[in-house]
Amino acid sequence: MNELGAFIEELRQALPDGRLLADAGSTWAYGMDNSRVHHAPGVVVFPESHEEVAEVVRLAHDHGVPVTTRGRGTGTAGGAVPVLGGVVLVTDRMTRVLDFRPEDRLIVVEAGLINAELQRIVGEHGFFWPPDPTSNALCTVGGNLGCNAAGPHAVKYGTSRENVLGLRAVDGRGRTVKAGSQTTKGVVGQDLTRLLIGCEGTLAVITEATLKLTPLPETRRLLRAFYPDMHAASAAVSRVMAQPATPAAIEFIDGNALDLLRRNSSVDIPASAGAMLMIEVDGDESGIEATVERVVSAARSADTDIAVAQTAAEQQRLWAARKALSPTLRQVAPKKINEDVVVPVSRIPRLIEALDDIARRHAITIVSFGHAGNGNIHVNLLVDPDDPAQMAGAEQALDEVFDTVLRLDGTLSGEHGIGLVKRGFVAREIPPDSLDLMRGIKAVFDPTGILNPHKKLPDHPDRVLQD
Amino acid sequence: MNELGAFIEELRQALPDGRLLADAGSTWAYGMDNSRVHHAPGVVVFPESHEEVAEVVRLAHDHGVPVTTRGRGTGTAGGAVPVLGGVVLVTDRMTRVLDFRPEDRLIVVEAGLINAELQRIVGEHGFFWPPDPTSNALCTVGGNLGCNAAGPHAVKYGTSRENVLGLRAVDGRGRTVKAGSQTTKGVVGQDLTRLLIGCEGTLAVITEATLKLTPLPETRRLLRAFYPDMHAASAAVSRVMAQPATPAAIEFIDGNALDLLRRNSSVDIPASAGAMLMIEVDGDESGIEATVERVVSAARSADTDIAVAQTAAEQQRLWAARKALSPTLRQVAPKKINEDVVVPVSRIPRLIEALDDIARRHAITIVSFGHAGNGNIHVNLLVDPDDPAQMAGAEQALDEVFDTVLRLDGTLSGEHGIGLVKRGFVAREIPPDSLDLMRGIKAVFDPTGILNPHKKLPDHPDRVLQD
Repeated sequence: MNELGAFIEELRQALPDGRLLADAGSTWAYGMDNSRVHHAPGVVVFPESHEEVAEVVRLAHDHGVPVTTRGRGTGTAGGAVPVLGGVVLVTDRMTRVLDFRPEDRLIVVEAGLINAELQRIVGEHGFFWPPDPTSNALCTVGGNLGCNAAGPHAVKYGTSRENVLGLRAVDGRGRTVKAGSQTTKGVVGQDLTRLLIGCEGTLAVITEATLKLTPLPETRRLLRAFYPDMHAASAAVSRVMAQPATPAAIEFIDGNALDLLRRNSSVDIPASAGAMLMIEVDGDESGIEATVERVVSAARSADTDIAVAQTAAEQQRLWAARKALSPTLRQVAPKKINEDVVVPVSRIPRLIEALDDIARRHAITIVSFGHAGNGNIHVNLLVDPDDPAQMAGAEQALDEVFDTVLRLDGTLSGEHGIGLVKRGFVAREIPPDSLDLMRGIKAVFDPTGILNPHKKLPDHPDRVLQD
Repeated sequence: MNELGAFIEELRQALPDGRLLADAGSTWAYGMDNSRVHHAPGVVVFPESHEEVAEVVRLAHDHGVPVTTRGRGTGTAGGAVPVLGGVVLVTDRMTRVLDFRPEDRLIVVEAGLINAELQRIVGEHGFFWPPDPTSNALCTVGGNLGCNAAGPHAVKYGTSRENVLGLRAVDGRGRTVKAGSQTTKGVVGQDLTRLLIGCEGTLAVITEATLKLTPLPETRRLLRAFYPDMHAASAAVSRVMAQPATPAAIEFIDGNALDLLRRNSSVDIPASAGAMLMIEVDGDESGIEATVERVVSAARSADTDIAVAQTAAEQQRLWAARKALSPTLRQVAPKKINEDVVVPVSRIPRLIEALDDIARRHAITIVSFGHAGNGNIHVNLLVDPDDPAQMAGAEQALDEVFDTVLRLDGTLSGEHGIGLVKRGFVAREIPPDSLDLMRGIKAVFDPTGILNPHKKLPDHPDRVLQD
């Protein structure tokens, strides 16, 4: 019996019945996420508690079996793909609310709870948890934490790491990690909470999280502004962010994306519009109109066409258009290259100029949209992988996009994560000495390297993944 | 020549003139901070740039010389005391603003810049940096980051770690660490930024920081509320935090502290008052009155006497009273024991009850005040170290305080840091396996253990500090 077989055998004995899938037909589906990478695992396990996760990892450690943790597999970077096989640890059954105390603005949940379900539970008590990625109807809190997920409201309310008080997790030896606390302040020990958030399961498996809740705003307004081009729109974003009334969201959509929406949705877009901003403002009833006025005044310039959505239905329709963009793009160009770069807000115009230039020179359609208040731009290269000439151009174009982002003091991924597919670019951003420290930290948490191997960081030169 | 002598010799050659103090008369003063611990360093160095810091640490690493970094030494936990001698690295001369971009809501500064000076610079452009410890006129940004400093406004605006985008630092080998970025989102690599914040110089020396700025609110109101006792006051805190209008600050002062203020300040305090809350509310002119109303309504109960400060002068006078508390206490009981515990907000009443009980049983006066919105209570045991019986009781009392805090899911230090004097309590809060991971991280950043030795974490059993 090989090591995997022995591992499965011991796992069967250690866990209650019904926790394992080991036949190839059943395990196959757990070899993929929302990237286009697939690798079948050797076994899939469905633990139902922190203790069961610890048991799985302990046994995997003893047998040298790779452990890849997954929520619902909505990630786009291959983070949940078990590239070396081994065990896929599915958190689907860990959905309990362990404690909920509105008076302390906190909830303690297991990692498998769906984001939307969490929002429903805390919403009934007047709260929300700010991270709300587009996939929130499907994705799990554990997946959100693994990737440091964000979404449109991060500009005002922060990303996952700003909205977590504490964690319980399992390290690469199967030991329990306690990180953070139930309080909003705390300086005892090192800040392991934020080290584990965004680690994509490479340092530890997050099993339980104490989430910091935010009171739901009393009311919201949605502004839609059309600009003749992206330069005018991004200048408006800079002006909005330079004044004190921080919007709850500032989404932008470029001209190419507007064309897609014109063809594929019922949104009414004037022919002259070359860019659109959607700005959400929230707050108390008593102050909201003054805030809207202030934001409108910052967003307005010559040739701007600004409308304030008057009804909740209109607001919802506008957001639906924005949320429809990703699937629409995927339909139009199923194998598009989707990047997730970030630049300081004031430098968005320079990024947009560079993108225009790159698209022109390489004859590739680039569609951009994203969370402008954070400078987080989803850059989509609409390419056909069956056209080798175009793909060669795309590779060159991507290279230039990354160069531009780094020259503008930006970062190569804002929220999608690194996973498998973006590791090749990490060393362009992080200097060798800092990368060396990160590899050292990885070795502390996971000395035998079983936790999500070949993810997040580029391979050490001596241990490169062979396809 | 011993290693220290050789180190000093090489340092003299490596740095420009005027960077060193090596005579015992001059170095003595750099052996203390605002704790009551002193240990003279062997040499004091005043680097003027990141590169000079890197040079100092590189040489210290080569010679095995301990490096203790200090700003202005306002810390209360002995974090800046060079317990093993060696070199004290003073950041006083590193006060440059390297970049300031209001349109990106960020400023890049060197670690030695004074907090109040930073506030002045960014204030002129309508921004502030939220961390504002009581010592803000003196303390440095580097010191703030080393301790994860906070202050009254953390309840709405977060602590240091929520208000930093990126760092430049020097690890224990003298290598440059790049952490974070200039953007509010970013998931490339591990989150070293928040690992270094609060590490008290034990993992790396922070030299430069990219700070996230917040727009100054348009206006502020200050509410003062007297309650018959602490139970009524802390119940009010819970009610205020359970509604959406988060105050900018909720400070509380207990009955014993009110007695001190009655005797030592001009604040007018009714004889019936057994506890006081000071609640700051901020926002736009258009909405502020509604917010005040909402907060007042949550804060009010039977026997509450609430006043809203009408003028800026009155606001300032109230804050001055709160800020005068620490010095007043120090005057009354110069050798008091000062703790900095945190509990979930809803559990403040249970903590207060326990403190009353502990004070009674051990016949010790306990004065409590602090940042109630975060559950951060500064617990002061007014003791006389020359009374051995009282000190024995105090030790027992402290032990019970910590037990209570941990039983309430709290943490033993909210913002003062661990330094030297609180290391003994860390292992009560952090389980052995997590502590082991932290020691592993320390070894990754500082393999020879030269960076602020015997601080932050309890000594490894094999390497206990001998007095």
